[in-house]
Amino acid sequence: MTLFDLQKKLKTEKLDGYLVPRNNMFLSQDLREDENLILRLTGFSGSDGTLLITRDKNILFVDGRYELQAPQETNPKEVEVFCTKEISIYQWLKNNTQDLKRFRLGINPWCFTSAQKDALEVNCIKVVSAPDFLPPMLSSTPANIFEHELQYAGQSRHEKIQTIIKHLKDSHADIAFFSLADSVSWLFNLRSNALLDTPILRAFALVSQDGKCWLFGDNLNSSHIKLDYPLLALKEVPAILKKFKHKKIAFDSAANSFALCELLQNNEIEIIPQIDYCQELKAIKNQTELTGIRQAHLRDGVAVTKFLCWLDKNWQGKTELDIAERLHQFRAKEELFFSESFTTIAASGANGAIVHYHPTAKTNAPLSKDSLLLLDSGAQYFDGTTDVTRTIALGNPNQQMAEDFTLVLKSHIALNTAHFPLGTTGHELDAIARAPLWASGQDYNHGTGHGVGCFLNVHEGPQRISHKGSSHPLHAQMITSIEPGIYKEGQYGIRIENLVEIVPSKTEGYLQFANLTLIPIDKRLINKYLLNEDEINWLNNYHQTVEQALSPYLSPLEKQWLQEACSPL
Amino acid sequence: MTLFDLQKKLKTEKLDGYLVPRNNMFLSQDLREDENLILRLTGFSGSDGTLLITRDKNILFVDGRYELQAPQETNPKEVEVFCTKEISIYQWLKNNTQDLKRFRLGINPWCFTSAQKDALEVNCIKVVSAPDFLPPMLSSTPANIFEHELQYAGQSRHEKIQTIIKHLKDSHADIAFFSLADSVSWLFNLRSNALLDTPILRAFALVSQDGKCWLFGDNLNSSHIKLDYPLLALKEVPAILKKFKHKKIAFDSAANSFALCELLQNNEIEIIPQIDYCQELKAIKNQTELTGIRQAHLRDGVAVTKFLCWLDKNWQGKTELDIAERLHQFRAKEELFFSESFTTIAASGANGAIVHYHPTAKTNAPLSKDSLLLLDSGAQYFDGTTDVTRTIALGNPNQQMAEDFTLVLKSHIALNTAHFPLGTTGHELDAIARAPLWASGQDYNHGTGHGVGCFLNVHEGPQRISHKGSSHPLHAQMITSIEPGIYKEGQYGIRIENLVEIVPSKTEGYLQFANLTLIPIDKRLINKYLLNEDEINWLNNYHQTVEQALSPYLSPLEKQWLQEACSPL
Repeated sequence: MTLFDLQKKLKTEKLDGYLVPRNNMFLSQDLREDENLILRLTGFSGSDGTLLITRDKNILFVDGRYELQAPQETNPKEVEVFCTKEISIYQWLKNNTQDLKRFRLGINPWCFTSAQKDALEVNCIKVVSAPDFLPPMLSSTPANIFEHELQYAGQSRHEKIQTIIKHLKDSHADIAFFSLADSVSWLFNLRSNALLDTPILRAFALVSQDGKCWLFGDNLNSSHIKLDYPLLALKEVPAILKKFKHKKIAFDSAANSFALCELLQNNEIEIIPQIDYCQELKAIKNQTELTGIRQAHLRDGVAVTKFLCWLDKNWQGKTELDIAERLHQFRAKEELFFSESFTTIAASGANGAIVHYHPTAKTNAPLSKDSLLLLDSGAQYFDGTTDVTRTIALGNPNQQMAEDFTLVLKSHIALNTAHFPLGTTGHELDAIARAPLWASGQDYNHGTGHGVGCFLNVHEGPQRISHKGSSHPLHAQMITSIEPGIYKEGQYGIRIENLVEIVPSKTEGYLQFANLTLIPIDKRLINKYLLNEDEINWLNNYHQTVEQALSPYLSPLEKQWLQEACSPL
Repeated sequence: MTLFDLQKKLKTEKLDGYLVPRNNMFLSQDLREDENLILRLTGFSGSDGTLLITRDKNILFVDGRYELQAPQETNPKEVEVFCTKEISIYQWLKNNTQDLKRFRLGINPWCFTSAQKDALEVNCIKVVSAPDFLPPMLSSTPANIFEHELQYAGQSRHEKIQTIIKHLKDSHADIAFFSLADSVSWLFNLRSNALLDTPILRAFALVSQDGKCWLFGDNLNSSHIKLDYPLLALKEVPAILKKFKHKKIAFDSAANSFALCELLQNNEIEIIPQIDYCQELKAIKNQTELTGIRQAHLRDGVAVTKFLCWLDKNWQGKTELDIAERLHQFRAKEELFFSESFTTIAASGANGAIVHYHPTAKTNAPLSKDSLLLLDSGAQYFDGTTDVTRTIALGNPNQQMAEDFTLVLKSHIALNTAHFPLGTTGHELDAIARAPLWASGQDYNHGTGHGVGCFLNVHEGPQRISHKGSSHPLHAQMITSIEPGIYKEGQYGIRIENLVEIVPSKTEGYLQFANLTLIPIDKRLINKYLLNEDEINWLNNYHQTVEQALSPYLSPLEKQWLQEACSPL
């Protein structure tokens, strides 16, 4: 299957275009490599984007993070790349189509929400359900299901389902349907090895008020565990929904596909609109999870610190892939390690300016002297998920690099130390991180913080800290990243990312952040004269905490390295 | 007409309740005192609120600013007060009504937008149009219309109308209708003396693509000027709209009443939804307006500084109303003075904690020693509108007052000095002002900044700096206030407000603020040890600018006072 084949197929299927999303029917961008149709068709490896195939052109729409990367990875003769901040899919169609009202645009209705479909249709595009236009979405390689043990989950699936049932009663709904794989994984305390970096069980779930539940998934091997509930093939969803004809469903149309909305309509199931309740519940970690997450961060800190000590002495002559592999080895030795939580971004020099770059055999670069290494990585431990970015001096970086690094540090500290009243959204806090950069005319073209699951997705909602609107307030016991950056095209990238948990502040009604990440920040890149006293104190205190926490687990040599790395500014 | 009369009338009109808004048919809260039905019915003098009259109870819903004031001004036997952050009108009705679906709620359809009506109806309340339930809305005292001269407006009405016509063509619309009085006043360069503090012409306008225009207003005297366009009575709106049957209208349903939507429907006039284009155009001041506004602030600075010098020597034995009157006298002496821009808030001691308190004969308090005076005032000059808040030390305020004042100053400076990229909304910037207060567990229950008209409303949109969402980006040549505060119930209130214009920053693609207000900030209330070097420099530079600008217009004694007030910290 090539782009050319699909363009020919458009004609036989009487379509003028087809929209390939970067997500699957679980509305998730976490795909196996063989499931990533955009990658297979265009070579673009980014985590987000939409491919529009028309009869004479193929257009890849990407966001700001991939502005530089997408044109590098794709063949300009085959694919034109546009940045969504410059032009929307609709605008492009409007500019390039003679009669938009007659334009027949095919989509897989299982991979788009009704809001996404409406957004296309409101602009007069005729959207046509064509679920079989592309090859099957899910890899045929079977995955094993396994239990997320109670000692890590802190709450049994029976208890969680009871919470959902109570919520159904309160909402006067008979059933709920969950399409998001992380909702289902969290609710049933189930995981799978389908994906390399994310242990989610890719399944739908239906919960009814009388306690009956159904799971739906394909290519899953569950013979070795007791699931408590039936696991049916995805194609059985319509048959089971039919049982609930004329009933009421608690339904998040932003977290379920348009295909599902149509099934509800066909069965005259009344929609009671609400947001996916699992997403809300899951974001607020229980005490067992928090304990696990803190321990996972301690182990992760030990592994990464050992690696940083090793790197300091051994970086010369190594490539990005070499050190990513070495980092993996350090982490893999830690207890309860399951996998990385995403493909490590080890970006040397100019590669660091490509936001969310990660080295491949094709791009792999040697670490270069007197430059910066941007290292964004994380791990899945059975008790928690980590995600950390450090920017590291290789040799003697120049003054400008240090100035920018210090600015990013100021930005990180500004948000890391913020206090804020209950009800504050991440959108409101976003500018607190950006203000120090804005002051020198700099900014970063990505969000400031995302939620993180517990042995689940490394990016989760509903809260986020972003310049894009987010109406979900931050809440105690949520986890978020704080990750401002500066990117200079062709030169270097800088990002400093910690995960933090949200905790009550000493003032009633206020919240603040507490660091989870325990990894030193490279002092060699700090221009102390740009920091004020409070900022210097923050860094020194953070480093003292890091040193005290990690030292017991390090060799004498590593301990000495850490002591130096954490000595006061 | 009393609340009791209206409760009886509910029965004869077959209504279960009636909603009295705080605005008129121009959707404006600027009312003559005799037009303020909520004031007349309940005694509540606040600028916002909604009164619900039911057959057995009267409920006044107010926002956080009036939480303290409303119960003080109303009779608890007649009116129950609720804060909208605690309970919505809908929620109250739900809790207090046996069968909400049968509840018939009367409204004047000219005073509510269709969104407001829908918000009630979506919650199953039966909304009934009852335009004549209350006495006529507009005062019968005629007002004089006058020209807003080109030397201040910078653009003739013909040019402005041409811009609207071009926009109509671009939007494929035949007509536009403007219900907001400040849109109409701006577009036609007309003003009136209908209101005490705001020189708006209270009229509707209809503009058609072929250049025809109609104005609609009642009790207006225009015999002495050449209007260029017909001025008809409000009741003529339906007849004129009929001329445009089956045409298309560019229409902002948030800026026009529900009654008007119904008229469009009746005439099958197709709505092309967009925001009131005058509001967008008006917010970005032209160079003539900016020059005028700066000059108005210079004169206002002179007047207020003369007043502050006088106050310093004469406050003992004076009341809030005494000094408000004296401030008025100082301003009234300045060239091009037209009126105050709102009723002066002169709030001594604990009155300062009542956000948007203003003294009345009933509440008027003597200025008290060793306390704070919060003074929020402004003026309408023919060339610009001012609005400034200063908090002033009377005697020897205590340490806590100084600490809070310094915190508010830090908050003010944080936002006043912010740089931000094009496209940033005021909502995003809001937390920059609040963060310094949040850090000590404090906050203020009002917005951080509002737009200001040019010889028009002292509060205007579409931009605002607020913790409430606002999707309108800030733009060069807009005016906004910056006005953080701290309020301690029963003790004192502190607010520091400057007006600023938005100007391009030295970095391309970035904006910053430039101070318009030229009035010293009371140094006697500053705890210098809580300010960092940048903050001290900001204040010293600001004071230097103020002193240089104002000194030429002051007497030797005043000059000396100002020199001391502006000497470096």
